[in-house]
Amino acid sequence: MANALGKTAVVPVLGLVICWAAGSFAAHPGLLLAPEDVALIRQSIDQSPGFAKDLAAVRLEIDTYFETFPDVPPPVDAGGGYSHETHKRNGIAIHDAGILHQLTGEMAYADYARRLLLAYAELYPGLGRHPQSRGPNPGRLFWQNLNESVWLTYAIQGFDAIHDALAPTDREQIVNKLLRPMADFLSAGSPGTFDRIHNHGTWAVAAVGMTGYAIDEPDYVRKALHGLNGEGGSGFLKQIDLLFSPDGYYGEGPYYQRYALMPFLLFARSIEANEPEREIFAYRDGILLKAIYACIDLSYDGLFFPINDAIKDKGLDTVELRHGVAIAYRLTGDAELLSIAGRQKSFVLNGDGFALARALDRGESIPYAFRSRLLRDGPEGKRGGLAVLRGGDGANSQAAVLKATSQGMGHGHFDKLGLLFYDNGNEILTDYGAARFLNVAQKNGGRYLPENETWAKQTIAHNALVVDETSHFRGELAIAEQSYPVDLHFASGGGIQLAGATMADAYADVSFRRTVAVLDDLNTEHPVLVDLLKADGKGRRQFDLPVHFNGQIIDVSHPPDPDPAGLRPLGDANGYQHLWLRARAEVAAGETFSVTWLTGNRFYTYSTIALDKMEVFFTELGANDPQFNLRREQALVLRVGEADSASFVAVLEPHGEYNGSEEFTRNSSGLIEDIGFHSEAGLDALALQTADGARAVLALSHDADDLVAHTIDLQGQSFQWRGHHALLDATPVDEE
Amino acid sequence: MANALGKTAVVPVLGLVICWAAGSFAAHPGLLLAPEDVALIRQSIDQSPGFAKDLAAVRLEIDTYFETFPDVPPPVDAGGGYSHETHKRNGIAIHDAGILHQLTGEMAYADYARRLLLAYAELYPGLGRHPQSRGPNPGRLFWQNLNESVWLTYAIQGFDAIHDALAPTDREQIVNKLLRPMADFLSAGSPGTFDRIHNHGTWAVAAVGMTGYAIDEPDYVRKALHGLNGEGGSGFLKQIDLLFSPDGYYGEGPYYQRYALMPFLLFARSIEANEPEREIFAYRDGILLKAIYACIDLSYDGLFFPINDAIKDKGLDTVELRHGVAIAYRLTGDAELLSIAGRQKSFVLNGDGFALARALDRGESIPYAFRSRLLRDGPEGKRGGLAVLRGGDGANSQAAVLKATSQGMGHGHFDKLGLLFYDNGNEILTDYGAARFLNVAQKNGGRYLPENETWAKQTIAHNALVVDETSHFRGELAIAEQSYPVDLHFASGGGIQLAGATMADAYADVSFRRTVAVLDDLNTEHPVLVDLLKADGKGRRQFDLPVHFNGQIIDVSHPPDPDPAGLRPLGDANGYQHLWLRARAEVAAGETFSVTWLTGNRFYTYSTIALDKMEVFFTELGANDPQFNLRREQALVLRVGEADSASFVAVLEPHGEYNGSEEFTRNSSGLIEDIGFHSEAGLDALALQTADGARAVLALSHDADDLVAHTIDLQGQSFQWRGHHALLDATPVDEE
Repeated sequence: MANALGKTAVVPVLGLVICWAAGSFAAHPGLLLAPEDVALIRQSIDQSPGFAKDLAAVRLEIDTYFETFPDVPPPVDAGGGYSHETHKRNGIAIHDAGILHQLTGEMAYADYARRLLLAYAELYPGLGRHPQSRGPNPGRLFWQNLNESVWLTYAIQGFDAIHDALAPTDREQIVNKLLRPMADFLSAGSPGTFDRIHNHGTWAVAAVGMTGYAIDEPDYVRKALHGLNGEGGSGFLKQIDLLFSPDGYYGEGPYYQRYALMPFLLFARSIEANEPEREIFAYRDGILLKAIYACIDLSYDGLFFPINDAIKDKGLDTVELRHGVAIAYRLTGDAELLSIAGRQKSFVLNGDGFALARALDRGESIPYAFRSRLLRDGPEGKRGGLAVLRGGDGANSQAAVLKATSQGMGHGHFDKLGLLFYDNGNEILTDYGAARFLNVAQKNGGRYLPENETWAKQTIAHNALVVDETSHFRGELAIAEQSYPVDLHFASGGGIQLAGATMADAYADVSFRRTVAVLDDLNTEHPVLVDLLKADGKGRRQFDLPVHFNGQIIDVSHPPDPDPAGLRPLGDANGYQHLWLRARAEVAAGETFSVTWLTGNRFYTYSTIALDKMEVFFTELGANDPQFNLRREQALVLRVGEADSASFVAVLEPHGEYNGSEEFTRNSSGLIEDIGFHSEAGLDALALQTADGARAVLALSHDADDLVAHTIDLQGQSFQWRGHHALLDATPVDEE
Repeated sequence: MANALGKTAVVPVLGLVICWAAGSFAAHPGLLLAPEDVALIRQSIDQSPGFAKDLAAVRLEIDTYFETFPDVPPPVDAGGGYSHETHKRNGIAIHDAGILHQLTGEMAYADYARRLLLAYAELYPGLGRHPQSRGPNPGRLFWQNLNESVWLTYAIQGFDAIHDALAPTDREQIVNKLLRPMADFLSAGSPGTFDRIHNHGTWAVAAVGMTGYAIDEPDYVRKALHGLNGEGGSGFLKQIDLLFSPDGYYGEGPYYQRYALMPFLLFARSIEANEPEREIFAYRDGILLKAIYACIDLSYDGLFFPINDAIKDKGLDTVELRHGVAIAYRLTGDAELLSIAGRQKSFVLNGDGFALARALDRGESIPYAFRSRLLRDGPEGKRGGLAVLRGGDGANSQAAVLKATSQGMGHGHFDKLGLLFYDNGNEILTDYGAARFLNVAQKNGGRYLPENETWAKQTIAHNALVVDETSHFRGELAIAEQSYPVDLHFASGGGIQLAGATMADAYADVSFRRTVAVLDDLNTEHPVLVDLLKADGKGRRQFDLPVHFNGQIIDVSHPPDPDPAGLRPLGDANGYQHLWLRARAEVAAGETFSVTWLTGNRFYTYSTIALDKMEVFFTELGANDPQFNLRREQALVLRVGEADSASFVAVLEPHGEYNGSEEFTRNSSGLIEDIGFHSEAGLDALALQTADGARAVLALSHDADDLVAHTIDLQGQSFQWRGHHALLDATPVDEE
């Protein structure tokens, strides 16, 4: 597990590059922007055309926004409604106007922010509970206090930026009628959120703590750091302790990790500015920096791996990662981060953003080296983990993801040991992500769709084993949260990258282990993915392995047999009701089933050996979807029925090129000609033979002990190795 | 029709910029490359890094290719087979090596070309008819003499480039054993191809004519220009006369226009170099230049409109258009062409390519201004035409295409008055193109798939009217070739761009007229597409209008009603057998049916008024497709049944924005609130009302006479206008 800490193990975490000036509670601006930053930016902005462009864009936006003074309506609407969206925009406008005042020196912007803050100081004291509040965490300005916390993290930065430009009476009015009442409401007035070890709690403590620094109220800071009672059982530090794994992984997956990261970054950066002696970025072995890098490492081609509830167009170019990359660069000076910033469409408008923009404009960027790594899950790293295997680089880069994490709370999907694969810039083995059209009113108000429960969370919607057409843990969250994959193994070296894990509790009486490997050194054009899934159970069970793939089918080894009567759903529950059965093929024991598809300009051949008789279903998403809520995607479902155990042995080979524009096609058939497999006494051996006669054997003991020797016979040859696995050359030697 | 000539009307066609030196039959190189070009390139290559990079890339390719001397196998294979592909590659290698010899001055490249030409001089005389030849146009080196012509256009350029470096004996050997025999075979030996007014004939005359120039044989040139008997009833000039319309349109559509253009360009450029007094590029009012511009004008976002048999990934970045743009730039100096060249991934390695590359590297490019235009079809421009309506620019650019052309020979589709629409960089109303995976052996050997006949060519596969579930002309080519759309009308101005045409003979007893307009001046975010299709017939007919769209359905006005029993094909023949019926909605007379979908980051609302009771079928492609040969696409089918006539009145509004990364959605519902329609005595009026209360009326007389006045009543108001159509402001005036 040498690589488990990934990038953060190789860049300076602490001290070396940090150049923030020590702040003090009294200096302004004193949160994410410092007087030194302001001076530097004003003086040197010509050195970064990129930063200057973004500043000009925000200036134009704010000029337009304040052309007529913004409405400050009575808070009546729920999320998406007029008052809700207006207050959200106003909070950001207060922030932006304040920052513009600092960076341009123009008083007009201070005045914009001042007048809007005063309008809220007028409104806020008279507000009771928001009329649309639901549940235990009501807000006043918004229906949820979460939104109120987010609003305050923006508004307080705007206030901080215009602090010195305010007349004392205005300042008092804003502090006493708006900032203190709101901070009081979000802390002492909302203990259920503020003291909770949860993302909503992080937003609350960030808002209250930043307010403490900005208005010089240490009590807010103390509560924010250590909880309402000041004893440290809750509050920011405890949240840092519990909400990230030691590798910086956040249990809900990267989509929510990104979102959750924001208040951590805003508050930590404010702490660093005001109380550098706390060394907050060194806290818990630099965990916040690790969490930023983890987000980057959990992406492919700029987008996050869409595990659990995830909108698939979220990735590195989000406001959270713009903050994250700027802070990480200021902490480390890691020039690889510049290449990430280069994919982002703007810079954050503060000193960190300026340093990043200037370095990028100076051409100091080097490509981010994505490395294979295991991100352990759970506060102590003992609740499974997410393994990412990387190969190739640039346009050829590959990523295989084995999801051996904990459930990830309410947004978690039931896909233990699920698999994703990317190649050549495309999703190849896919994950549906969440069933949601974010903020699209016609689609269930922009909230999660019913199909998120009936399809997206179900096991069949993932490249994960389904037993008896029911989802893992019967689809019950409370049960799912109690179990984690075990026996994680992660290794990289010797032409092979590998991850494996065992899941024992997803089904009663069935345990399964999945081992995923990327083989670099075969005589194939690109690294090849090997997937071995072995399930052991009792009784007569049905084992389904879905293969969700992205591409156009080019060739199939066993002619599919469509039902002449038309299409029917593959099943009636647990997600199966959403799959149309397009065709069915039968594969006799001992035969290899293979399908070739075309994705982008490359071919992919997926081959699987039927150790027992196997059925293959060609399915397409869209059944029982009268609202057209589901995207039209496709999957193979491999089925072994009426057995107490089953093994799925598969190889996925990327190959060849389709070039429609230049009118040529190369290697549309792949180079792997034959696959052999043998299993014996817990040992497995998989032989791959390529068209040039080369033959390699992947031998697996599944035993992490490096010293133990193993022997297995395959196709009349005997193979020996030590340790968990080995990749052996078994090319026949020509005899003269 | 002021704009019918499009771009070519506004750039200098002749004389002004042409700077080619007069060639002579005896100077070498003397085809597409001239000694002056060579001198300039060698001396000035540093002035174009782009050209230098491409030269280096070809050099690397050829160095690699000749590392071991290429195989020259006996010709035994059909297209795609080893000997076929090897000879193809060798022909290009002869060309490239010759050019490299000229541009680098290195003798090694001359020697590569020499040895390979000598190998063919050895092989060729002994060849009889190719063993795989089929049909009336056999080849010797290849299965079709088409391939042999193409081969010779490459090889002759290589020969020409190394002519002066060859020892006389080698030269004689190559001329007498290879070039003359091949040219004789392709001319006198293949009269059925050589004298045919057809693309294959153009390749033959180009190969033979270029050979005539290169080996100083005027007889070949004469035959190439004027046909075998020298009388001009066939040959290159006659082909120029007949194969393009006066606007430079080629009857098969842009995909094949690109391919067909190549031999015209190669030979014309060779004629210009050797016999500039012919003024070949001025011939027929500069038709070859018009044909190049037509190709560009028939593209969107770099790809050709996929009408007729077209592979959808072909477009401006193809070898044919790289030649075409280089020649057009040399002829015109039109800096807009540089922006097209900037999208191409390489430059042709000759003087024209160098001039283009250098100007591009000097930053002289200006964006190509795509204009609305009508490209008339037929040699005299009397066989209908293709209308392209353009709006917006850059990322917002729109294009609407009304296909009112002739059938386009064997590659034509049965889609008279079919409609395509593009917006925001995406296909919105789509055309399937051809059912073919070019060169992918597993897919019917890379040839057209059976589904090209059963689906792609059928009317239902297009946004075109289908009567009684049968395709236009009953899908019979011979009948289809005899009819053309009539009464074409094309106009642009006054906030409206419009095209209309009538088709009288696609069905017995049914005539239909379609009018398509893009309205720029409504209070909508983007121009709006209006589509009015009126069909008149006899008896009880069924009228189907398919709407093939690209996107995810967001909202539907009339809840679709899926068949609980599963999916069945919509019909059993003429393409209907390939459409799954997913759901059905009923729209009462007078109601407006609308559907909103999301494509990329923009919403589209398609609204249609049911003048009579209408059924709407939600369909998806893929039925009766056991080989997975079809892409999974979708269409609405609007149906008016049991009527002698039907009108389809539709409005397509692009609106709003979905931004998943920044988490906002704007205007997911569109601004057009109400649509009204009235038809009376051949006049039509369509009213569009937007959310801000503005109301516009599109009034149509369909009468081209500008002087005739018309009056129609709509929604209690009376509207007057003169001429074919008018866009009238009907916004109610507020009364005090």
